[in-house]
Amino acid sequence: MKIDPKEVSTGELHGYLLSAVAPRPIAFASTIDKEGNPNLSPFSFFNVFSANPPIAIFSPARRGRDNTTKDTYHNVLEVNEVVINIVNYDIVEQMNLSSVEYASDINEFVKVGLTPITSELVRPFRVKESPVQLECKVRQVIPLSNSGGAGNLVICEILLMHINDNVLDDNGKIDAQKIDLVSRMGGNLYCRASGDAVFEVRKPGLTLGIGVDNLPENIRNSDILTGNDLGKLGLIEKLPEAAEIEAFKETEIAKSVLDNNNANELQKLIHQKAHELLDTGNVEDAWKLLLVNQA
Amino acid sequence: MKIDPKEVSTGELHGYLLSAVAPRPIAFASTIDKEGNPNLSPFSFFNVFSANPPIAIFSPARRGRDNTTKDTYHNVLEVNEVVINIVNYDIVEQMNLSSVEYASDINEFVKVGLTPITSELVRPFRVKESPVQLECKVRQVIPLSNSGGAGNLVICEILLMHINDNVLDDNGKIDAQKIDLVSRMGGNLYCRASGDAVFEVRKPGLTLGIGVDNLPENIRNSDILTGNDLGKLGLIEKLPEAAEIEAFKETEIAKSVLDNNNANELQKLIHQKAHELLDTGNVEDAWKLLLVNQA
Repeated sequence: MKIDPKEVSTGELHGYLLSAVAPRPIAFASTIDKEGNPNLSPFSFFNVFSANPPIAIFSPARRGRDNTTKDTYHNVLEVNEVVINIVNYDIVEQMNLSSVEYASDINEFVKVGLTPITSELVRPFRVKESPVQLECKVRQVIPLSNSGGAGNLVICEILLMHINDNVLDDNGKIDAQKIDLVSRMGGNLYCRASGDAVFEVRKPGLTLGIGVDNLPENIRNSDILTGNDLGKLGLIEKLPEAAEIEAFKETEIAKSVLDNNNANELQKLIHQKAHELLDTGNVEDAWKLLLVNQA
Repeated sequence: MKIDPKEVSTGELHGYLLSAVAPRPIAFASTIDKEGNPNLSPFSFFNVFSANPPIAIFSPARRGRDNTTKDTYHNVLEVNEVVINIVNYDIVEQMNLSSVEYASDINEFVKVGLTPITSELVRPFRVKESPVQLECKVRQVIPLSNSGGAGNLVICEILLMHINDNVLDDNGKIDAQKIDLVSRMGGNLYCRASGDAVFEVRKPGLTLGIGVDNLPENIRNSDILTGNDLGKLGLIEKLPEAAEIEAFKETEIAKSVLDNNNANELQKLIHQKAHELLDTGNVEDAWKLLLVNQA
């Protein structure tokens, strides 16, 4: 399927983009107008883009429906400060309620039952129930066009970060399971980033993996090993030594495969077992097993 | 806990920001240098920001370690085109391998075993295995500073969107379970946005929910109902009529609560049952049950 942005409606394109570029973090933006009236509204055209200076960007876009603009957009032009509150599972329904298009003079903190607390460096309130609150100065606002559906980049410098102690681990770092973040997907869908949805991938750091191109051909072209398997195998810097492979032959894992086979099935069995080992993160043994059969 | 960006190292601040602003979508960026050498590298400082014009931004930041810049950054300055490939679970390990800092003349497509296919409107290749590929023109590159850890905003206009048919549902829309997206969290963590992690929240659309401030006081201040419960209750536009509530008293749900109680426990039992009903999305019955006891 191919979508040419010039040939579909903005609404349709918007729908496809939101389903494809996902899950998106949520900026629950607290702003005030020049009279000091507070506003609280969620935006998923949002991310952090730099640590030094610490910059986050969100986009209160022009409405596709009628090309009107949002209170948050007006507010950051009037008072160039914002608190970006991070959204966890516990407040997702109240955040959703805040996206109701109440009149400008309605205070969403009251409307959705969240607690405004004073910020230290900026005038807009923080959301007490939010696990992380970023006090920001708006550096610049960049409208991307004047048409309906156009984004307005609100470029924010983070002045102060508040983190609720109850989402920290014993080392004072944010614990993904404790913070229990939610993020936006397409349509009415959200993603809850905790439980089994969270998984670990070993970062290469400064190591230079040998790469998939340097895997033996029968491994690279295996019908059984997946792309993820090959990626894990290619991340190794140095193949196991002959002596290690020799010693590995005596392990239960190796014997379970090598003892029960006829010659024709051997490679298949080895690749199946290697796939299982890679799935559980045991890259070392997977490599040794695969190399038993090379040479 | 409070973090003042001026008082911690860039690395430490970076770590907290990545754990708090998450999960982040991943731009698997394919670029070329002026000699046509391809590069493929993932970036999670990325999102879509506008549908009209269709704009995505990603940031190949300056390295915090030594303030060097990345091949992707050099490439977009030399050839202002990029294909942003979307990352699903099936290619996450190969994507991870591509983040190894191979020399500039190494072709990551070969190194990680992904298939380059020709784009229609731009010169960089698409990743065949990626479920959605966005052919983009780079409109502008905005460096945020010259220090280590500084972001470089690469502002991309999406010219053409390719979607693999096998991630579409019967209506030709992207199916969240089929596309099986992955996104970046802090440290070595990723989030897989499928299975039970995906949940639905009813969008307000143009309805004006009564708001948490208009809930009866004993509901708003309940020890049993959660913030999410209150958010769902506040999204209703109009309370059930007296006749509906009267009729509801005769249902099994109502009887199960109303028949087995002493007067002191009644409100607690009603709130517990309403909480269960709200948890399963049955907002109508929760409301009726809660109102049985008002008046």
